[in-house]
Amino acid sequence: MGEYALVPWDLRETMGGWPATLRVDVWDGTGDPPADVSDVTFYVAPYGRPAGVAALARMPRLKVVQVLTAGYETVLPALRPGVELCNGRGLHDASTAEHALGLVLAAQRDLPTWVDDQRERRWDAHYTRSLADSRVVVVGYGSIGKALERRLLACEATVVRVASSARPEERVHGVAELPDLLPDADIVVLVLPQSASTAGLFDARLMAALPDGALVVNVGRGGTLDTDALAAETATGRLRAALDVTDPEPLPADHPLWTHPGVLITPHVAGGSAAFYPRARKLVADQLHRFATGQDLRNVVRLP
Amino acid sequence: MGEYALVPWDLRETMGGWPATLRVDVWDGTGDPPADVSDVTFYVAPYGRPAGVAALARMPRLKVVQVLTAGYETVLPALRPGVELCNGRGLHDASTAEHALGLVLAAQRDLPTWVDDQRERRWDAHYTRSLADSRVVVVGYGSIGKALERRLLACEATVVRVASSARPEERVHGVAELPDLLPDADIVVLVLPQSASTAGLFDARLMAALPDGALVVNVGRGGTLDTDALAAETATGRLRAALDVTDPEPLPADHPLWTHPGVLITPHVAGGSAAFYPRARKLVADQLHRFATGQDLRNVVRLP
Ligand SMILES: NC(=O)c1ccc[n+]([C@@H]2O[C@H](COP(=O)([O-])OP(=O)(O)OC[C@H]3O[C@@H](n4cnc5c(N)ncnc54)[C@H](OP(=O)(O)O)[C@@H]3O)[C@@H](O)[C@H]2O)c1
Ligand SMILES: NC(=O)c1ccc[n+]([C@@H]2O[C@H](COP(=O)([O-])OP(=O)(O)OC[C@H]3O[C@@H](n4cnc5c(N)ncnc54)[C@H](OP(=O)(O)O)[C@@H]3O)[C@@H](O)[C@H]2O)c1
Repeated sequence: MGEYALVPWDLRETMGGWPATLRVDVWDGTGDPPADVSDVTFYVAPYGRPAGVAALARMPRLKVVQVLTAGYETVLPALRPGVELCNGRGLHDASTAEHALGLVLAAQRDLPTWVDDQRERRWDAHYTRSLADSRVVVVGYGSIGKALERRLLACEATVVRVASSARPEERVHGVAELPDLLPDADIVVLVLPQSASTAGLFDARLMAALPDGALVVNVGRGGTLDTDALAAETATGRLRAALDVTDPEPLPADHPLWTHPGVLITPHVAGGSAAFYPRARKLVADQLHRFATGQDLRNVVRLP
Repeated sequence: MGEYALVPWDLRETMGGWPATLRVDVWDGTGDPPADVSDVTFYVAPYGRPAGVAALARMPRLKVVQVLTAGYETVLPALRPGVELCNGRGLHDASTAEHALGLVLAAQRDLPTWVDDQRERRWDAHYTRSLADSRVVVVGYGSIGKALERRLLACEATVVRVASSARPEERVHGVAELPDLLPDADIVVLVLPQSASTAGLFDARLMAALPDGALVVNVGRGGTLDTDALAAETATGRLRAALDVTDPEPLPADHPLWTHPGVLITPHVAGGSAAFYPRARKLVADQLHRFATGQDLRNVVRLP
């Protein structure tokens, strides 16, 4: 029996037809799959569909499962030994970095004030901060952090790279150096995963090291920042903040951060934009091609 | 008698001391100048200070006047023949391009909606457009248009360049090609000067060529766009808009654009940010150095 791929979108246009050696069906994770899934050998789990994960249990001949998120905790319990797992690393980089840039620009150029003024039909100009010439400390210099850096540099900002440990050959600082780096920062952007080592990492002591008026941005995970400590700093207006992720999430309606001056909040939407789909389609098309021609796949997860 | 420069800021730190051959005083255009200005040979007119322009009449030995804006209409009447005039071309590029980028990102990523939601303490996520993968037609590929392009490319957008006439070797389209270019545009950004040839340039017919949902951005001059035609398109929600400049300006409180869906308005603030001063200081320091060492000056305006 040949190879049989089940993918969430019709990619024939993207690929110039399906690979000749491959049987391919399309299933988006809603309703029933188009055919008996027990012959599926290459499976792309539909994005955000629990039924798509459940279907794994009915695929005894499966060789490869591709997920479209960086995380893959939900598929692990359904994964038989020997099945190759590929993740969606990189697919959210453009969307998340772009939203982080939007938050930074909105804060530096007072966009929330202009929106409030517009609601009152008020034309009342004032001079603002800029991103150009600002010093931005990016905490979490991974896939998204690098995508953000490219955007910040094009805006004539200076970027200081911080990761878990120093990599001097890449000009990356270790997280332990933050107390020395923050006093010179205009902006700090957190792009950290949630983990034991990052929980509450950006705490009152690090915030205290920032100069007056500095901007704290978080597009990683809400728990990597001490929310109470930040609220104490924004209550007085000493620090500003732009947060796409909070702790807890959703942010309760009675939380003080909603109304502090200089605080901008978006409801965890950095990754969720139109930039995702073209990248996901491109990755899946490439993987199908590699699978059909026997080449190594991309984004293979090394399981313990 | 030697050369005597009057400049608006103390630049000794930027320059590593004043040039030895030059006497330099600092005057910011408020109060009286520090000494008799009749010996001034190199004068930097303080930014946005009418008294600074008036002082020109009391400088009979003047050789060079540097203004800090791209426009110089206000100094022309006070300029004696033989005085070299240098303008502030480029000083506002970073600030204006960055604000244009902020408007584009705010519109694509629904920032005004998140601000409105924040005011109601509402956490309600939805999927948004992106800038990445968008096709952006930049109408006015001059100093600011180029600075904007660098930022858009870093955001993984595609840029289509348009100027007054085609320059195929630079992949610049002429403005006459707009009817063919606009049907494929997601976003169009106007960065045009006000002139006879640009007045009302972006009219109802060009707007009609844009696809549904396209975003119209203007950071050049309000009069380069037909405001009534735009209001007709935004009233129905067919087009979106983000405007830093309007016609008339200020936009009257009863103007319909204030409340149309998908319209974002800022009160002509694109050029007015902190990005201006470091660039102005750098230009003036460089000009002082060139003047003291007899080199050609930058940004010399060729007067008729
Ligand atoms: N807001 C949203 O919608 C959204 C969307 C997508 C992703 N995210 C979040 O963004 C996070 C980052 O994504 P990514 O793709 O950039 O991940 P990534 O490529 O794995 O990069 C993570 C970075 O964080 C650093 N890091 C990890 N632990 C650290 C610690 N204790 N101290 C300092 N730095 C530490 C890593 O350092 P090393 O380089 O030293 O390993 C790495 O540079 C994701 O985990 C996800 O939670 C949010
Ligand atoms: N919102 C703000 O706060 C702010 C701040 C600064 C500046 N501005 C405005 O932005 C304008 C542009 O500034 P800039 O420094 O980029 O000017 P620039 O370097 O002179 O560039 C102007 C561009 O517009 C093009 N152009 C002129 N007439 C045209 C026409 N009829 N059709 C199509 N294109 C035409 C020029 O085409 P060619 O290349 O063919 O000559 C050039 O590419 C300024 O004039 C100013 O009004 C606004």
